[in-house]
Amino acid sequence: MTINNLRVAIIGAGVIGSGWIARFSENGIDVSIYDPAPDAEDNAARTLENAERAYSKLTMAPRANKGNVRFVASLDEAVRDAGLIVEAVPEELTLKKTIYAEVEKTAATDAIIASSTSGILPTELQHGMAHPDRLLVAHPFNPVYLLPLVELIGGKDTATEVIDRAVEIYTDLGMRPLHIKKEIEAFVADRLLEAVWRESLWLIKDGIATTEEIDDAIRFGFGLRWAQMGLFDTYRLAGGEAGMRHFIAQFGPCLQWPWTKLMDVPELTEELIDLISSQSDAQSGHYSIRELERIRDDNLVAILQALKLNNWGAGETLAHYEKKRFDAGVLKTTSIDLSQPIRTLERQVPTDWTDYNNHMNESRYLQCFADASDTLLRLIGVDAEYVDNNGSYFTVETHIRHIDEVAALQPIYITTQIITAGGKKLHLFHRLYHDSDRLLATGEHLLIHVNLETRSASEPTARVSQLAMELARAHVHLETPEGAGRAVGQPL
Amino acid sequence: MTINNLRVAIIGAGVIGSGWIARFSENGIDVSIYDPAPDAEDNAARTLENAERAYSKLTMAPRANKGNVRFVASLDEAVRDAGLIVEAVPEELTLKKTIYAEVEKTAATDAIIASSTSGILPTELQHGMAHPDRLLVAHPFNPVYLLPLVELIGGKDTATEVIDRAVEIYTDLGMRPLHIKKEIEAFVADRLLEAVWRESLWLIKDGIATTEEIDDAIRFGFGLRWAQMGLFDTYRLAGGEAGMRHFIAQFGPCLQWPWTKLMDVPELTEELIDLISSQSDAQSGHYSIRELERIRDDNLVAILQALKLNNWGAGETLAHYEKKRFDAGVLKTTSIDLSQPIRTLERQVPTDWTDYNNHMNESRYLQCFADASDTLLRLIGVDAEYVDNNGSYFTVETHIRHIDEVAALQPIYITTQIITAGGKKLHLFHRLYHDSDRLLATGEHLLIHVNLETRSASEPTARVSQLAMELARAHVHLETPEGAGRAVGQPL
Repeated sequence: MTINNLRVAIIGAGVIGSGWIARFSENGIDVSIYDPAPDAEDNAARTLENAERAYSKLTMAPRANKGNVRFVASLDEAVRDAGLIVEAVPEELTLKKTIYAEVEKTAATDAIIASSTSGILPTELQHGMAHPDRLLVAHPFNPVYLLPLVELIGGKDTATEVIDRAVEIYTDLGMRPLHIKKEIEAFVADRLLEAVWRESLWLIKDGIATTEEIDDAIRFGFGLRWAQMGLFDTYRLAGGEAGMRHFIAQFGPCLQWPWTKLMDVPELTEELIDLISSQSDAQSGHYSIRELERIRDDNLVAILQALKLNNWGAGETLAHYEKKRFDAGVLKTTSIDLSQPIRTLERQVPTDWTDYNNHMNESRYLQCFADASDTLLRLIGVDAEYVDNNGSYFTVETHIRHIDEVAALQPIYITTQIITAGGKKLHLFHRLYHDSDRLLATGEHLLIHVNLETRSASEPTARVSQLAMELARAHVHLETPEGAGRAVGQPL
Repeated sequence: MTINNLRVAIIGAGVIGSGWIARFSENGIDVSIYDPAPDAEDNAARTLENAERAYSKLTMAPRANKGNVRFVASLDEAVRDAGLIVEAVPEELTLKKTIYAEVEKTAATDAIIASSTSGILPTELQHGMAHPDRLLVAHPFNPVYLLPLVELIGGKDTATEVIDRAVEIYTDLGMRPLHIKKEIEAFVADRLLEAVWRESLWLIKDGIATTEEIDDAIRFGFGLRWAQMGLFDTYRLAGGEAGMRHFIAQFGPCLQWPWTKLMDVPELTEELIDLISSQSDAQSGHYSIRELERIRDDNLVAILQALKLNNWGAGETLAHYEKKRFDAGVLKTTSIDLSQPIRTLERQVPTDWTDYNNHMNESRYLQCFADASDTLLRLIGVDAEYVDNNGSYFTVETHIRHIDEVAALQPIYITTQIITAGGKKLHLFHRLYHDSDRLLATGEHLLIHVNLETRSASEPTARVSQLAMELARAHVHLETPEGAGRAVGQPL
């Protein structure tokens, strides 16, 4: 990787500078930091802790040995051996230029200087430098250690090789460099953010909505879309098969309506419409609208499920909805035929449960069996309330036979037979079928009742014990399932 | 649920109307649709197909029996028995008012009329109606069947009970109703979108960025943030411990800078700053900045991982980065001690692998074992190239003993012992440890070599066979692991 042996200096260790420290260090790069503020090192430590926590969850790939993080006493010491100097000080042109002058006294002449400015033009920043060709803007987004975007902007004197090298470096850091080819104050992303900020200030000032309502209008709606497609791809889809031109024809007139307070709008000439349509075609014309719709939907489903894991925002809404559905669909012992194995699970194989071949992953078989065991447990009275009172069953032993494959979106179901129930033990046998009654796998499980406070084996309540034994008695006439009692590799 | 026995009429079956059909029908509600366009039913069918595909993946909760979807020949027939009438026709005030007049001839007087308009004021819509109190705006976002947000806005004559009832209905549909208390053209979300749209038109017209670059500036950066927190919570975090007031002090001056073309800005008076700060405190003051940062990070990690499943956008960036890390970290037989069980997995337990008690889920144990088997397979030459040539191993039998619990973020590792290797068979025994060498579980697995084309058992290549047997020979002196050969429930 091009970042091997790179040494980095960071000037300014605020929220952005600290985020840079974390990202470089995570990638095995040694970092020297200069920030004269007395609490700079403590504040940075806080960000580094957050970053460590996030990185530990972000990927299962092997992580690099962390680069050395060293706060130094002077700017000269920080930049002396650096190949890349990251400036992340407050947005004051004079301050930044003073720092560059100081940097150029000590730094190698081929060291790249990357400003994190959110909006000052690189041409202004490099004006008066001894080696202006090595300065560019590399504008990241908070939290820098997680968000991939970094806008790269050169000034009129920036060398092409410097931009090229920066693209390589930031790519190696796991980022998504976006080279903005024409400089403008605030570049691209922050111009859009500034527009939203200004409109939001009006909404608050005029008493239309509170900060919370505005945030909710974003994160339960278009914010979800924008995590995966931007404004134009989204509107391309809103236009349907007729595409971008149709969308503009429909919504173009809004430009003349008082739909925002920000009324300085470009004229929607035929030329501008052509430009947008042809750019949108170049961007996404290789997908049909149908394909794009499904990519969007898959992304939205995955994002909603991701947020559900954290019970946050749109994911919390989904969790509430699911709970109601589960409550409506819970099995009742009175409504099922207990003399046969009990249907404890029905679903389709989700697409994200599959390998590159589109077949259900090994571990998801066990997830199905575990979910089926949960249904069975609810049936014998081990429900949320029971668990709240510190009773539950833990699986201590499992045997799975994989018999056939199943593909994404295929319907599957499980039937469960109670082998034995009594005392602390519950011995279950699940059969997983494809909807066509094709046997896919069997799961044999020994569960032990536990006290959740002591985390050790304990007797279930009399009611749970009785319900479990009733079920076991109802199944006692069933044949012992083929495969029950097998050890791995045992001859057939 | 309050939507039981609700009957719905939908007028207009375009992109939005069709999305409504899908959402109501998914929730077991019968829908009558009127749309005179000859291709309306075909177009709606396309959306319903997309929605079915998305819903089949969205939740594992039991789904309701779908409501009946019926296209009818007249508006009167559609609305006759409806308790809720959804209007989703083009944005023309006269057209909408004509439809309401027609609706009121037939519909029950207490039927609610909900307009899907993106921006017309409800007071204008209800003007002249016989029963204006039952009209409100319920503005959804495309795709309506997935995005939870619906903005509810009443006009001056709308009854409070109508808003209350709408909140109940849309909540039952799995949506997130946001009641906007003061009407304004384009309401809240679309005002923000319109601001971004206008700024984007300038960026394109001025040649700063293309549609693709603008979309990337959104979806690799702030779009990811906005899927989970809005503008104000995000900026609250940017302000650090000092919070919202500090952020405004820092970035307030930008309002006077040319950071967008949209220069009509409110004056940032002390009063407005106070209003924003106190609203932000009411919104999120019950979290410390530290807590909010970690919630944000957990959400971003989950979203990035979700998008990685689809290899899209920021998830594709993460996948590339991971691949490089995996390539850098792959085990080489030359670098490990083969005379001992081989360390085939090292990781921390991700937070989304855990149950409500923060312990690793049952099925994730198998995922760890499956990943360890994959490492072992790469070690004997079963790599991506081998798989491309249609050779692989499938697990046919598994036995797991769960011995101890492990919590989120704890470091774990696996060692793998080869019990036997030869012919088509590979018999492995994994031990899963907490970093402190506490044994958490064992996994015994029988794998069979398969031809991926025929999906049936086959001999491995000579090289794979030889490498597997070399490893088996190196392990032949190791003791048979405790628990190997066990069947479920067998006495100790």
